[in-house]
Amino acid sequence: MKTTANESSASSPRVPEPTLRRLPWYLSYVQLLHADGCESVSSTRIAQAVGVDPSLVAKDLSYVSVDGRTRVGYRVADMVAVLNNFLGFTHLHRACLFGVGSLGAALLQDSGLIHFGLEIVAGFDVDTERVNTNINGIPVYHNSQAADICAREQVEIGILAVPIRSAQSVADEMIAAGIKAIWNFTPWRISAPEGVVVQNTSMYAHLAVMFNRMKSLP
Amino acid sequence: MKTTANESSASSPRVPEPTLRRLPWYLSYVQLLHADGCESVSSTRIAQAVGVDPSLVAKDLSYVSVDGRTRVGYRVADMVAVLNNFLGFTHLHRACLFGVGSLGAALLQDSGLIHFGLEIVAGFDVDTERVNTNINGIPVYHNSQAADICAREQVEIGILAVPIRSAQSVADEMIAAGIKAIWNFTPWRISAPEGVVVQNTSMYAHLAVMFNRMKSLP
Repeated sequence: MKTTANESSASSPRVPEPTLRRLPWYLSYVQLLHADGCESVSSTRIAQAVGVDPSLVAKDLSYVSVDGRTRVGYRVADMVAVLNNFLGFTHLHRACLFGVGSLGAALLQDSGLIHFGLEIVAGFDVDTERVNTNINGIPVYHNSQAADICAREQVEIGILAVPIRSAQSVADEMIAAGIKAIWNFTPWRISAPEGVVVQNTSMYAHLAVMFNRMKSLP
Repeated sequence: MKTTANESSASSPRVPEPTLRRLPWYLSYVQLLHADGCESVSSTRIAQAVGVDPSLVAKDLSYVSVDGRTRVGYRVADMVAVLNNFLGFTHLHRACLFGVGSLGAALLQDSGLIHFGLEIVAGFDVDTERVNTNINGIPVYHNSQAADICAREQVEIGILAVPIRSAQSVADEMIAAGIKAIWNFTPWRISAPEGVVVQNTSMYAHLAVMFNRMKSLP
């Protein structure tokens, strides 16, 4: 019998998004401790360093299989390894980027993403001046080649950085090419069928929040 | 008598963050309508296009001074102008970027931010190989020059893209240099005094959420 999405989520509880957003804070802190040769840490100390309530730290860490011992605390080296693995940063996920404009080209130039489990293997664009170039060693192809290349390169993730007018149609092309997740950098609201993950990272929405909060400053 | 932060927030209601994050979706949609020569639009049509409940669209738009008329709907051209202005995209905010590594250099290369009200006027780093260069026409200085240059250039925003070990200390330097808001791209939890806005955009946290959701796919 095939396991359905519901069954698999029943067996491993869905981790709340706020927890997933806080775990990288804890990881950053224990990485520094580890580099400094520190061997164990309590959840209280993590809580203090990160500015999160201790009970919340303990709850967040309960989703992760990291052993804590009363009085001794968590082993730092274990925690670095377990958190990195849990967050998916140790497993390389293959991605393609669609839209090699200003933001898209910038993302291709960020070699740091690979340390967090994201390997961008190709870029796609429709502009003939961009097609058949490469940026930071990553080849740029025409959109029409996406299905072939995504299949050949076993790409799981599509990064969307196209102009808003093409955002939905390019997302549809990605899905047709067998992509499992869309990392959406456009300010366009993408609609996708169930079974495709959409992660929005709209820098412009974040700018809007920041600008608005600045207006309330005395 | 000096107006305090509390008084100013009492006179203009604080816009909820989810609203501020959805408004750019509506703006994107009406921008396309405007480019296509469409003159008016109903909140129902926006809701349908963006995939948000119509009552939520109406509520979100109630924070923005945009005139809607029964049956006629909103005037598209007005809405583009009013939303752009409300979100702060029409006013240039001067920013400096700290940490010209892989991500930082990529952000300097993204010329698109200026269309959303963010003008990066300088970069700062401590690496002598990066200092006194320029990226995309933006000069890179040594961190020690930050206070002088931020004052001279009337910089309001500091973009933080340094390694986690220096994240808090560089944030402290920014604040000492008179910066009003920190756009934090590091996975480090920054602490800042009241009166300084901190906007987190951790791409790594977003990757973690996306990777985790992908694991639950059938």
